[in-house]
Amino acid sequence: MNNQKTPSQSPITWPTTQRLTEYLIILEELAENDIEVVSSRQLAQLYGNTASQVRQDFFRLKHTGNATRGYNIAELQATIRRNLGLDEVHKVAIIGCGKLGSTLALHVPLADYGMRLVAAFDIDPDIIGSRLSGVQVENADKMIKICHDRQVQLAALSVPKTAAQHCADRLVMAGVRGILNYTRVRLRVPAHIRVQNRQIICSFMQLCSRACT
Amino acid sequence: MNNQKTPSQSPITWPTTQRLTEYLIILEELAENDIEVVSSRQLAQLYGNTASQVRQDFFRLKHTGNATRGYNIAELQATIRRNLGLDEVHKVAIIGCGKLGSTLALHVPLADYGMRLVAAFDIDPDIIGSRLSGVQVENADKMIKICHDRQVQLAALSVPKTAAQHCADRLVMAGVRGILNYTRVRLRVPAHIRVQNRQIICSFMQLCSRACT
Repeated sequence: MNNQKTPSQSPITWPTTQRLTEYLIILEELAENDIEVVSSRQLAQLYGNTASQVRQDFFRLKHTGNATRGYNIAELQATIRRNLGLDEVHKVAIIGCGKLGSTLALHVPLADYGMRLVAAFDIDPDIIGSRLSGVQVENADKMIKICHDRQVQLAALSVPKTAAQHCADRLVMAGVRGILNYTRVRLRVPAHIRVQNRQIICSFMQLCSRACT
Repeated sequence: MNNQKTPSQSPITWPTTQRLTEYLIILEELAENDIEVVSSRQLAQLYGNTASQVRQDFFRLKHTGNATRGYNIAELQATIRRNLGLDEVHKVAIIGCGKLGSTLALHVPLADYGMRLVAAFDIDPDIIGSRLSGVQVENADKMIKICHDRQVQLAALSVPKTAAQHCADRLVMAGVRGILNYTRVRLRVPAHIRVQNRQIICSFMQLCSRACT
């Protein structure tokens, strides 16, 4: 639960944040295979970038490791988690528990990365009351009160697009700080709320463009 | 089916490609609301960047529009699609039709963006033979032959991690050019094959880091 950071730390840029989350996945794979140390070169090969980029990213974390013998994987994992704020438990809600929302609840290992699903909402009477990853799906009418009471910080929005802005407004009222937006709507939210747009079709388009043109 | 491009066109960078796919989603929303023209400033406001960035991105497409009156949305959509190669039909397979794979098949509007689901595979006898978005799920044993015969170019990989590399190897043998990798495994593929890693947990981590630290 310790969220202390080195005060001299330089801010972590967005591209670095993105890479750090992927390094974390790679490091976990290595640790599962009982590997204890990794060099910047090995990590770069697995990630698909350069050793110099890897070293720069870790330098920003003030984690320089041992330049000759490589990084201790357990220490590096802890450093990355601390820098990304994943050493605390952040509470997550899923809004819209249809096909996509329920897949997010069941498929994504939030608990392994400093997050916990604490609420799920839908408007479908057939879905309300069912359980998803240990959480009971509630009526979306109760979203503001429940999110507020359970101190939800992050929400994944997987509702039909006609409901997207209305749900986002309610999440903001409930005090949520970040929204992972799987809908196709560009949400209007106050400046202090973070929104990440994650339309899956965009990933397919990007791959198509890179692989087929 | 016309894939001609202006020969003088400068290469589109990866960040530009990413933004273009999102502009396309926004433009579609505008078009659905019967809006015909958009300025770089309006688009930047919807996307969350600057008008100058928007103009730069479109300049790379050799689509400068009318600087004073804004861009014609229909023309701009066509230009972006042509530049991203989405004016042809690219054939897609889904490997692993459990919770995530079936969500991809049912939830992602491939057909609206120059792609078509033509094959789906699993190893579970309960899933093989079922239909997903008009495609019959086939036994994964037949992956190489079917992907080759149906000229699959892109594949989404949503299998357990123990099966990931083996499936990737078979996709490469079948002539697939790009893989959207939803598993946590870093795939080893020949240099000419494009892999995009799309672990959903990374999106949650990135949001958590931006919103809560």
